[in-house]
Amino acid sequence: MSFRHTTGFTVEFGDCDPLRIVFYPNFFRWMDAAFRQFFVAAGVPSWYETERTDGIFGAPLVDASARFLKPATFGDRIAVDTGVAEWRGRSFVVAHVIRRADEVLVEGREVRILACRHPDDPARIRAAAVPDWLRAKLG
Amino acid sequence: MSFRHTTGFTVEFGDCDPLRIVFYPNFFRWMDAAFRQFFVAAGVPSWYETERTDGIFGAPLVDASARFLKPATFGDRIAVDTGVAEWRGRSFVVAHVIRRADEVLVEGREVRILACRHPDDPARIRAAAVPDWLRAKLG
Amino acid sequence: MSFRHTTGFTVEFGDCDPLRIVFYPNFFRWMDAAFRQFFVAAGVPSWYETERTDGIFGAPLVDASARFLKPATFGDRIAVDTGVAEWRGRSFVVAHVIRRADEVLVEGREVRILACRHPDDPARIRAAAVPDWLRAKLG
Amino acid sequence: MSFRHTTGFTVEFGDCDPLRIVFYPNFFRWMDAAFRQFFVAAGVPSWYETERTDGIFGAPLVDASARFLKPATFGDRIAVDTGVAEWRGRSFVVAHVIRRADEVLVEGREVRILACRHPDDPARIRAAAVPDWLRAKLG
Repeated sequence: MSFRHTTGFTVEFGDCDPLRIVFYPNFFRWMDAAFRQFFVAAGVPSWYETERTDGIFGAPLVDASARFLKPATFGDRIAVDTGVAEWRGRSFVVAHVIRRADEVLVEGREVRILACRHPDDPARIRAAAVPDWLRAKLG
Repeated sequence: MSFRHTTGFTVEFGDCDPLRIVFYPNFFRWMDAAFRQFFVAAGVPSWYETERTDGIFGAPLVDASARFLKPATFGDRIAVDTGVAEWRGRSFVVAHVIRRADEVLVEGREVRILACRHPDDPARIRAAAVPDWLRAKLG
Repeated sequence: MSFRHTTGFTVEFGDCDPLRIVFYPNFFRWMDAAFRQFFVAAGVPSWYETERTDGIFGAPLVDASARFLKPATFGDRIAVDTGVAEWRGRSFVVAHVIRRADEVLVEGREVRILACRHPDDPARIRAAAVPDWLRAKLG
Repeated sequence: MSFRHTTGFTVEFGDCDPLRIVFYPNFFRWMDAAFRQFFVAAGVPSWYETERTDGIFGAPLVDASARFLKPATFGDRIAVDTGVAEWRGRSFVVAHVIRRADEVLVEGREVRILACRHPDDPARIRAAAVPDWLRAKLG
């Protein structure tokens, strides 16, 4: 059984568009935040720390997708339930389910790598191998 | 042959994260903007106008996905090339390719409906049938 | 003594820019959210409700300012302490202090009106008189 | 006479809130982008370059303010006219006027420093002295 974590957010006025529903890129913003809080909850140190120990500073995206089943509006409390669905060589798949109370609003999926800075050019990024200690924490 | 349109954006400092590359939800923000400008370029009137004529006020998402092939950083000029890839009963598929000069950075796909406000509750939305005049403009 | 409320936020990776500190417009986003939660905590109904009862749907800005005393980075927990500093005819001044534990990071100030939709043109907004019941709740 | 520059933006659907007008933190986002484009137009090299030559990587905020005179909505073309209003020891004042055609929508002001990374801690920032070459370019 692998580690899972739920992160709560409140939908704000400024998260909604003229249709009065969440402007959809914000759901990806919340998935990204939920992913970081999932790592923190599993005991993965901050990117500041992993940069010193493993040269890893962030987990950029290779692929992202979402199905939007129901809209949300400001004042709604939403919960993002997050886990790793699959480990692949140098990438891994993060699965998110976003709910308002019992209703599923969004199902999302992110494929991520672990980023090392390229030694010659800070704008370039290489995919690091997933360290054993990290995979152990996420079980 | 269906209508296509290209929208240009400049990647800004605030669009980038501590990895110094675009924070990925911004690519969805640009796809959403490119979709609206694609409609405008095709001669589709503003949502203010279509609300009066057809009760349609926006085109919310059913599904969105993107493959991130190369990162971008601030100062980069990017171009989003947009078209309708498929019409389905009450939804349609928008395909985007985001380039920096000749390099493809992102391939994205949005499934959208045309939204009518629900008569009883402004927070609820119904999918309208795609009007013939709209489909004619988009070839 | 007037009503005050504190709203907590977590600074996320995507809230930070290539300097690895909060991209400053996000502090205004959090002040806007803290203002709404302040109204909710004081017992002011949702804008959906006040639109029905008083025709008021939102509290747009006339003026906003902030002093940035210390930066914040991802993983920081911040608290926005919010109150009304002054009532003026049809506008009012909202004062915010943003702290990380005991450190003051930002002092902000928003001058807001209460918005009614203009009857002829939904893109236009008029300032409503502040209802007595609202001022009573905010002491 | 000091250097000035005008940067154009299109207001998008997702930049607007349920009042159908620009969500105000976006005006600060556009001012930040206009500031960077103002520097670029004056011939200031990218932050990647100035980091190598002068250790300067960005221009974070000490203070920001704006007066919102008229709202804008999606589809509007806006222009941000930017200049340096004042040089102070280690900070400087950037003045912005945002217009839609001839109408002034927003008057903004940013007080900025030039940031060097703190040698011991990448999360900390020090204010650099303004290099002579930079001030020469901005007249």
